[in-house]
This record gives sequence, structure tokens and C-alpha cells, in this order.
Amino acid sequence: MLVEIGNVQIGGPKFTVIAGPCSIESEAQFLATAKGVKNSGAGILRGGIWKMRTSQKSFQGLGSEALGFIKQVKNQVGLPLISEVTDPRQIEELIPFVDAYQVGARNMHNYSLLKELGKQPKPVLLKRNFSAFIDEWLKSADYILSGGTAQVILCERGIRTFETATRNTLDLNAVVYVKKHSQLPVIVDPSHAVGMSDLVPQLCYASAAAGADGLIVEVHPKPSEALSDGAQALTLESFEKTMRQLEKVLAAFDRGLNKI
Amino acid sequence: MLVEIGNVQIGGPKFTVIAGPCSIESEAQFLATAKGVKNSGAGILRGGIWKMRTSQKSFQGLGSEALGFIKQVKNQVGLPLISEVTDPRQIEELIPFVDAYQVGARNMHNYSLLKELGKQPKPVLLKRNFSAFIDEWLKSADYILSGGTAQVILCERGIRTFETATRNTLDLNAVVYVKKHSQLPVIVDPSHAVGMSDLVPQLCYASAAAGADGLIVEVHPKPSEALSDGAQALTLESFEKTMRQLEKVLAAFDRGLNKI
Amino acid sequence: MLVEIGNVQIGGPKFTVIAGPCSIESEAQFLATAKGVKNSGAGILRGGIWKMRTSQKSFQGLGSEALGFIKQVKNQVGLPLISEVTDPRQIEELIPFVDAYQVGARNMHNYSLLKELGKQPKPVLLKRNFSAFIDEWLKSADYILSGGTAQVILCERGIRTFETATRNTLDLNAVVYVKKHSQLPVIVDPSHAVGMSDLVPQLCYASAAAGADGLIVEVHPKPSEALSDGAQALTLESFEKTMRQLEKVLAAFDRGLNKI
Amino acid sequence: MLVEIGNVQIGGPKFTVIAGPCSIESEAQFLATAKGVKNSGAGILRGGIWKMRTSQKSFQGLGSEALGFIKQVKNQVGLPLISEVTDPRQIEELIPFVDAYQVGARNMHNYSLLKELGKQPKPVLLKRNFSAFIDEWLKSADYILSGGTAQVILCERGIRTFETATRNTLDLNAVVYVKKHSQLPVIVDPSHAVGMSDLVPQLCYASAAAGADGLIVEVHPKPSEALSDGAQALTLESFEKTMRQLEKVLAAFDRGLNKI
Repeated sequence: MLVEIGNVQIGGPKFTVIAGPCSIESEAQFLATAKGVKNSGAGILRGGIWKMRTSQKSFQGLGSEALGFIKQVKNQVGLPLISEVTDPRQIEELIPFVDAYQVGARNMHNYSLLKELGKQPKPVLLKRNFSAFIDEWLKSADYILSGGTAQVILCERGIRTFETATRNTLDLNAVVYVKKHSQLPVIVDPSHAVGMSDLVPQLCYASAAAGADGLIVEVHPKPSEALSDGAQALTLESFEKTMRQLEKVLAAFDRGLNKI
Repeated sequence: MLVEIGNVQIGGPKFTVIAGPCSIESEAQFLATAKGVKNSGAGILRGGIWKMRTSQKSFQGLGSEALGFIKQVKNQVGLPLISEVTDPRQIEELIPFVDAYQVGARNMHNYSLLKELGKQPKPVLLKRNFSAFIDEWLKSADYILSGGTAQVILCERGIRTFETATRNTLDLNAVVYVKKHSQLPVIVDPSHAVGMSDLVPQLCYASAAAGADGLIVEVHPKPSEALSDGAQALTLESFEKTMRQLEKVLAAFDRGLNKI
Repeated sequence: MLVEIGNVQIGGPKFTVIAGPCSIESEAQFLATAKGVKNSGAGILRGGIWKMRTSQKSFQGLGSEALGFIKQVKNQVGLPLISEVTDPRQIEELIPFVDAYQVGARNMHNYSLLKELGKQPKPVLLKRNFSAFIDEWLKSADYILSGGTAQVILCERGIRTFETATRNTLDLNAVVYVKKHSQLPVIVDPSHAVGMSDLVPQLCYASAAAGADGLIVEVHPKPSEALSDGAQALTLESFEKTMRQLEKVLAAFDRGLNKI
Repeated sequence: MLVEIGNVQIGGPKFTVIAGPCSIESEAQFLATAKGVKNSGAGILRGGIWKMRTSQKSFQGLGSEALGFIKQVKNQVGLPLISEVTDPRQIEELIPFVDAYQVGARNMHNYSLLKELGKQPKPVLLKRNFSAFIDEWLKSADYILSGGTAQVILCERGIRTFETATRNTLDLNAVVYVKKHSQLPVIVDPSHAVGMSDLVPQLCYASAAAGADGLIVEVHPKPSEALSDGAQALTLESFEKTMRQLEKVLAAFDRGLNKI
């Protein structure tokens, strides 16, 4: 099953890297990151507008303020954008700005949201809840698919286990399993899965070698100043290095990057 | 902190039992259950109108059809009703029918829903997500409380662990811990936590002995014919027996049931 | 199935409390604790001689030094003793000193040890490994039973889950489940399961109300000076209070304490 | 830190594949497997003599019967052998037959065993317990190292999580983490981690790409007839294919196989 975000096909022979900041923090930060990741070979931008935060005292995203400059950045850089939707009432507001919707791990069971996303034409990236059985994840995808769309991408982002040394436990078993048991493309989010930027590159290579269709990676020009999830963001320099090694791993499987 | 559902105070010296079917399936089923549980000493009714189901092919609840007879049943029996809300847009529709809103485990991270529930005056029962840290559960309660209400009840309903012999693992550690670290009333849902009706009574007694403020228990006149979660529902007869033994356990702590 | 430790029957109508220090640290500490817990109604003493410690730099128990005074303390106080065995070669050495052997959670899968314990006549208390399925726990008991003995007691001591607020998650579902599916007596160790002494009493009451056959509780004259696990040990005063409330809970089930 | 098993160095630039049957079932089965895996590029043989089985009714390994032919097979094939030790009293008996000892997941906390293994000169492969924190795993390695040896290899073999679609959850986060925080070589056992042979090859590639020092893989000439763990064993044909693709992945990192 091929899913198209902008002109980028996910699920075919090419491998797609979605990259960008956890949160869009300002036009300058977003533009710098977007340019940088495109130059390194990313095919799609990511960037949070409204954030799901465990505490209501944490930064909740720029929200509507970000909508003022998103289009310009996209046009200037020439990459499509995927962004998270956290409430069914945001779907319509986001239509002019995003090329695909992301459903975050904490909304994987938000069936009201899933059903409405299935009725609109833009692709949906469905993250696995951090404690969802693979079977529940596929059934949540069915909630979207039953609305009529076929444009669903699955995303493994780590599960919650007893281990505390890393943020979550990346479950590549699940990626390999789902590739055998579902037609949907599967990508991996190593940034959330491990939570430490210096461990992200090896997990990018491992995900590609496991047969994933792509990656979604957090990149920030200055991770130490990020308003959310700075500890897991790659710098533009480490992203560039990671992409060059990633290409070698993909070549071992006769694959290449999905660049624009 | 005392929370009032109808005339029933939760969080004080009396122990409150909320009982009823998983789903409201028909007027007859709901009325028979409501009368039965009231006779045995339940203080509040439970009954699902819209159900959260992992598969979209499972029974999704009677929905609006149930609204046609809920008021009559409540009036006839004389107990307040708590029911689950799964979408912010249902809050207003439910106002005339329910005395308190339940947020299910899968919506504990649905911050859009939590924020709106905090702005209205009816009490909110917040179930712990089956993989939420205690700290995340309390922070989700803060999302509701920050809207201005003080009427929040916490509900432990079992967590997802490696064990598969039981549906989930009832976490009474969490109940005891939260009673020490939060002012909010805490009740226990042993039915979902264990998933087997013959193990529910002992867990009701254990929850009372651990110091919970109440229970929410699934009861069905004919569990084998239930449209959802029949395996964990008590019959009216076993509910009656459980309530009589429960009163003895509560007496050991100089407590009694919150009956109307 | 009745199991007898000294003259104390476990698994019958009476409820048995095993109490004492995590580690035997000195004759004075052991004697003071033993007298205190007997006065409050404990029926059996516990006390570690060789400790299983995650780090080889932690206190490993008094070892053979403790053997010099254990008999005198037992005679003076008049209670039987249970102590942990961590190596098949310790079984024989301990014969004159202990009335029952404890297999700790980390040795539940140590089949060499289990098989040898099944060939000797003293009762064996088998703790559930912190990540063992109930089924694996029962199969480990079968390893002991297949040696010829029938004197096995199961002990739930908390499982390892994602939750970090408490040391482990006490699994009372498992206690209720095993009481239905096995003939063996089942006791509960709330001290290890929760790891915080101020939460232990409520979990003692909950365990009794759930239908356990007894408890094993850590008690120390001065928990802040304990060489191991002080954070979870009750003082003699709080143990006394806990036992008095426990008797009330047991009375609700027409049960009493197994005192000598 | 380099560890040498026979003439094979683990932990250096070359990548080592340990392969063979779960259990040694007969001379013919062991010889056929050993020849096959050597031809495909394995550097070390694996083969269980005494098996740790959850149920005492399952096949427990050939035991001493296997010792009769192990040397001949090793000489004929020319590969060193690693085999599991489950009781300190087996260490000496195994000296003439094995080139390294394996400590299984269920014995990671068997400190008596670990201490004695640290006092002898052969390398020790320490599997991570399926519910051990990374920190506990490293501390168990310290128990061995404190005996005086430096010849310890760590092996990640999957952890126990809530997920049931796969046997365990392979934790490559842990592999990447331990490579940064420990000097010890780290290898991966994808066979036990996922439990389904058709998912093993991708996880071999992923492990290599994550930076592991090697693999331990179960191979059986006829997996459907295996006496233990047949569902996860590769055939000789699929092992050959996997090794050829693995070499391509390693080449992407300028690495090669450690062949004899």
C-alpha cells in the first residue's frame, strides 16, 4: 500500500525520512531546521503546533500563532509538512497548512478523532500508543480506514516497559511483525523511543535494517534551548552524519532515500 | 475533599458503591439492574451509553437511543447516574441525563476532553490509564481541576503488565499511595482490573481494606447474555452476597455503606 | 493443603503472620525483634542469613556468624524460623537452624535448588519471581513437589511493572487467582511489594481481605539503622498497631491469628 | 575489551556469529548443524546440554549423554563451543567440553553461580534476565568480574513486556546504551527475543546495524522436529541466506564476519 504525502511516496522501494523540531517554536527556528534537514535528505517536515503534554504547566505549543508562518516556510523550503492533531475540531483548521495529520501515541485510542480523520483525504500517521498491543494498533488503524481512506501510515515510537535507563523501549519486533501482517507502511520514531540523542543514530540504522519504510526524527538547531524534548533532538550536524551512514545501510538492501 | 454525585458524598467516612451494567442494552435490562443494585446497597448507578471499543466491529453502545429512557429509570429507582463521555461534543448532550461524567482509561490523556470537563459543574470520575504512572494520573486530574472545578474522583482500574492470567493487574499500591499524596477521593474498579467475575468479590473486600473511598462494579442480570464485558459482571445474587460481606469488612474500620 | 512450620499450620482457618528483620544483623537486634513480633501475635520468625543483593558491594548478610546465636534466640522466644537459602549447598548447613526454607524471588527459576529442596522434609516458601507469570510460579512449585514433599507455600511479593512510584506492584489478583486454581497455601509479602513502610499496613489488611493465608512482614527495632531494606520495615510499634487492626479485618471473615 | 573464545575474538572490529541448536539432541543432529553453520560463516557453536525448562515435564536436555560425542564433533568441524551452565557443580564437569560458559536469563541473579564462574579462566556469556534493568545486568557482570576474570560477554535476549504477539521484546535500546556505558562486548539473541523464525533475519540485520558485537542464533536442520524451541530456529538454508545479507549490512559499517 503506497501512501502519498505531498509528492513523497511512503511504502515503496524508497526510504523516507521525516524530520524537524518537536515543537515549532518560531519562524526562524522552523525555517533553519527545515532548510537543514532538506539539505541532508529529509523528504518531509515534522513540527508540532499543539503539543500533548503530561503537565498543563509545560509548553503547550505555539498553537494558532504558528499558522501565520507555516506556509511561507513550506514554500521556501519545498517540503510537505506533517503535524499532530489532538482534537477533532482542529482537523478543519489545519487543512490549509498540513499535508498529513499525525495522531500521537496518547490519542491512538481516541476513536472519535480516528473516525473523523478517516473521512478526509489527507494521509494519517498513526503512532502506536506506548502500551498498545500490536493488535490494538492495527484495530485503531481500522477505525481510520473504515472512514473510507486508504492513506494510513503506522509509526512505532517505543513502548513503556519496566526499564528506566531509556525513555521507552523501541520495539523493532513490532515493526518486523507488522510488515509481515499488514499492508500499511510502517515507520519508526527512534527519538521518542529512546529519549537520548546520542543513541538515536544507531537506532535509525537498526530501523532501516529491520525493514521499516522510513523514520521520523527530531532535529533542532540548538537542542539545549528547545522548549520541548531537547534531550532527544539531533543537531543539524549529527542529522547530516546520520543520513550519510543511513544511506550506506539502505544500499545494503538496494534501497535509497526518498529525496525531493 | 468531598465530591457530591446527586446526594451521595464520596470521600467522607461512608463508602460508596457505584454499580450497574457495562453497557445500557435496553430499558428492561437497565431497570432490572438498577433496582437490584439499589436494593443491595449501591448508592450510584453506572451504565455506558457510548462505549470505547478496541475494534470498531464490537458493540459500540446504544448511544442516543438510551437517552430516551434513562430519566425514567433514574426517577423510578431514585439513584444518580454516572456515564462515560468519549468526545468533548457529548458533554452538553448528556447534561440532562447524567449526574457525573466518567473519563475512561483510554481517554486519560485526552487533554481536550479533560479541559472542557473542568469548566462544567458536574463531578468527573477519572480512570487511570492502564499504563499511566501515578504521577501522570494526578497530572491529568490537574488538567480538569485547572478549569475551576474541585469535583474530581480518581479511579484505579488495573494496569497492563506482563501477566496474562488476569485481564489487568489491580494496583492497590497505587490506591494506598494516592490516598497519602492527594486530597482527591479514590475508588476502585475491580471488574475491569481482573476481568473474571468469580475473582471480583475478594478484590472488592481488599479494596475496602486498603482504604479506598468506594467501588465501581459491573453487574448484569444475565452476564452470559451481556453485549460487552459479560465475563467480569456479577449477577444480582453475587452482588448482594458481596455487599453483605463488604459491610462486615467496612465495619472493621468503623465505616458503613453510603446508601440512599 | 496444610503446611506445618514448627507447630504452626498454614493454609487452614487461622491466618499466619511471619515477621522479623530483613537481615539478621546481630544477636541483640534479632532477639529484640523476635520478642517484639511474638508479643504482637506473629507465629513465625523471618530473618535473612545470606542475602541476595543486586550489587556485590552491598551487605551480603552475616552468614555463618549468625548461626552462632540463632538457636538461643529461637529457644528464648519460642517461635520457629524461616530463612532464605540461595545455593543448594546451604541446605544441609541450615538444617539445625531453620524450620522452613525460603526461596527468594530471584531464585524462583533456579531449578537445581528447587529440585533439592523437594527431597528434604522441611517446608519451602516459594516467592514469585518479580516477573513470573502465575503459571511459571506454579510450575516452579511443581519442581519442588516432584521431589516428594507436599510442604510448599506460595508467596506473592510484588511484580515489576512500568510504575516507579512504588518499589513493585503488589498483585492481589494473583493471590485470589491462585487460591482458586491451586491447593497450596498463599501468603503475601507487602514489605517488598511496595517498599515504603507507611503503605505496608493498608496492604496487610487488603491481603487478608483478599483471602491470603498469611503475611510475611519486615520489622526492625530501628528501621533507619537497618543494613538492608530499612525503608520498608515497620517499627515494633507500628507492627503492633497493624496486628490489632488486622485482627478486626480477619474477624470480618470469622478468622483469627495463628498465635503460639 | 576483547574476549577470546577458542581463537575467536569478540568485541573487536569483526562481528561474530554463534550458531547451533537450542538443545544438542543427538550426534547426527549436532554434527549436521555444526557443519552447516560453519560453512555459512559462524565462528562459534552453541548447543544446550542441560536445559532450563519452565516445566519439569519438558525435555531437560541430553545431559551427560551429550558429553560422549561433543569433542568429536568439535574436532571434526573445528569450531569452539559455548554451552549453558545451570548449577555451580556443573562447571568442573564441563571443562573438557566447552570453550565458554553461558549463563541463561533465568540465572542472571544466581550470584552463587556467577561468583564461581568468575574464578575460572574460560569466558562467560551473561544473558540479560528478561526483566532485568540494564543496571542489574551490569551489576551481575560485576559479580563475575570481581572473581578476577575479564572474560565476560553481555547478551541481550529480549525482555518481558505487555506485548504478546512476539515471545519477548528485543531491546536494542539496551544494546546501544550498554555499548556507550560499558567496556564489555555485547551480542544479541534474536531467536529468543522474538520467538518466530521468520522474523529472525531482519532482527539479525537490525542488531548488526545497531552496533552489536555479534549474534547468537538458533539453527536446526529440521526445526519442526526440534525437541525445544523449534518455532524460532532457522533452517540451514535460511541461516545461509541471512548470513549473506548480514555481510552486506556489516560492510556498510566497514566490518566483516569473524570466520575461522
